[in-house]
Amino acid sequence: MSQSFDIAVIGATGTVGETLVQLLEERDFPLANLHLLASVESAGQSLPFKGKNLRVRALDAFDFSTVRLAFFAAGEQISRSYADKVRAAGCSLIDLSGGLPAEQALRVVPEANGEALQTLVAPYQLACPSPSVAALACVLAPLRGLLQMQRISLTACLSVSSQGREGVSELARQTAELLNARPLEPQFFDRQIAFNLFPQVGAADDAGHGLHERRIVEELKQVLGQPDLTVSATCMLVPVFFGDSLSVSVQNRAQIDLAAITAALEGAAGIELVGQGDYPTVTADAVGQDEVYVGRLRCGLDDPREVILSIASDNVRKGAALNAVQIAELLIKHYL
Amino acid sequence: MSQSFDIAVIGATGTVGETLVQLLEERDFPLANLHLLASVESAGQSLPFKGKNLRVRALDAFDFSTVRLAFFAAGEQISRSYADKVRAAGCSLIDLSGGLPAEQALRVVPEANGEALQTLVAPYQLACPSPSVAALACVLAPLRGLLQMQRISLTACLSVSSQGREGVSELARQTAELLNARPLEPQFFDRQIAFNLFPQVGAADDAGHGLHERRIVEELKQVLGQPDLTVSATCMLVPVFFGDSLSVSVQNRAQIDLAAITAALEGAAGIELVGQGDYPTVTADAVGQDEVYVGRLRCGLDDPREVILSIASDNVRKGAALNAVQIAELLIKHYL
Repeated sequence: MSQSFDIAVIGATGTVGETLVQLLEERDFPLANLHLLASVESAGQSLPFKGKNLRVRALDAFDFSTVRLAFFAAGEQISRSYADKVRAAGCSLIDLSGGLPAEQALRVVPEANGEALQTLVAPYQLACPSPSVAALACVLAPLRGLLQMQRISLTACLSVSSQGREGVSELARQTAELLNARPLEPQFFDRQIAFNLFPQVGAADDAGHGLHERRIVEELKQVLGQPDLTVSATCMLVPVFFGDSLSVSVQNRAQIDLAAITAALEGAAGIELVGQGDYPTVTADAVGQDEVYVGRLRCGLDDPREVILSIASDNVRKGAALNAVQIAELLIKHYL
Repeated sequence: MSQSFDIAVIGATGTVGETLVQLLEERDFPLANLHLLASVESAGQSLPFKGKNLRVRALDAFDFSTVRLAFFAAGEQISRSYADKVRAAGCSLIDLSGGLPAEQALRVVPEANGEALQTLVAPYQLACPSPSVAALACVLAPLRGLLQMQRISLTACLSVSSQGREGVSELARQTAELLNARPLEPQFFDRQIAFNLFPQVGAADDAGHGLHERRIVEELKQVLGQPDLTVSATCMLVPVFFGDSLSVSVQNRAQIDLAAITAALEGAAGIELVGQGDYPTVTADAVGQDEVYVGRLRCGLDDPREVILSIASDNVRKGAALNAVQIAELLIKHYL
């Protein structure tokens, strides 16, 4: 990590992009020039960075051969449109949009499969998995030596920030309307989200699965390096602004040693284990923190081979921006 | 159902008790005299019933030999204190508090195990299972012929009304404080529930399980008549006023026939199946309704023997008060 690099952040004015820029500053990322890029509509805005205001420029005019690494935190379509152009310019890319297929952009959670970068060559095309997978992989990776995981059944309660700034504004607006006894007029969501929850996030495909659910099932196996794992996921949208809450059941081939699992989680990087007698929540613990919070660790009542646990994680930080910066740090340290 | 009975409702001024009295009126329950009872503190209030105001009397002075059936919708301790006295008076009892052990009071969901009453003798001591089990049993009972269920993994997102009126007031108060940028002062709950969720409801025991979770695991097997089922449950408390949302994965011994399951649910009593392209939520669908809403029916992505579904149900109605009245209707029709 002796060199400094020129770097670009695409989608710098979005929730994730803005946090990413903050993290580059907080973590003193070794960069020479930082280029902030966005759509023509957002170009011209500026973001604070190390005491200066950096102007956001239009993406379409940018020459990617001038930077070594680009973070794509805009929409899926933007990532898909630019990926080949970025590669042709010799620039490595970390996608945060979920828009690039797994065959094109390996999903990486440094704590779980950072070593997979060894098998690739520059320019790298890498991606953050869905925020739920980033959090869950951090928790399960240190347990791979202790568990023989067979099946994971997961319910992910996603906050409205998973739907971007409009999701956050809509929850605030709907809640205020209801508390003031004004008629509810859903706009961004098609129905009441305040004091309600949706058992589905976005549209479902013909088989009934949502996009996030498919991503969780595919990405978790890839990131953990366990293609034969059976994964089942349901995503819900909950009236919470920031932070994801996961309810997880892991079925194993052998009986659980809860003390060994506790010890492994206590010593694991990026994890904060909350002991019995308490439990982690997004607002009190996870939001604004780099760590993934784990609690409610217990064996199944009917099955001594089952581990049940709950996770609270900042979907914007470890779920996306922080994970991307950690991938970049790994790239810079060993590969770029 | 040719006779009319004298009946008592204990805890008539609580959320569930009040709904129970409304349902007795709505369903034109065949009763002669209705006695409303509560603790000394609540005695003296009155509740509307069939155009009159019925006065709530003190429980401790009541002679149970004057009624044929008593609904216990007060606290667990009240049910435990009075159960023997009620039986000695020759009065049958339906417990809604969860306070009586299963060996003493059989859990009944008429759609699932109504026929179990045949094995008992008067005076009956019966109980409603936890609201999540009442909802889930309604959905799974009509599928027993189609599925060879092996394991059920469940995440139950409980609304604050599961914690009584104080839970409802606390969510409203906390939300108003946060929206008005006043400092949050948790009172009834020990931390912020507004725009947050708890991955645990109430205290956990030494093994890490909550009381609701233990009840779900035990009661579901009893109500479905499948003692060898493996059940795993996590209860969360969500910032929703009324209605429970369940995320359910069912593992079966044989491959799923989704069309047959769909047809069975479409024809089942007490169920409203929401087709693909939509999904059920508590505020838009379930609250205030007798039916249990089911949706997001699909096979596991990795396992053709897995059925995944979501349920939205009114925890106060089918979860408690309605289920109790339906048990009473069954008792009166065939047994009392």
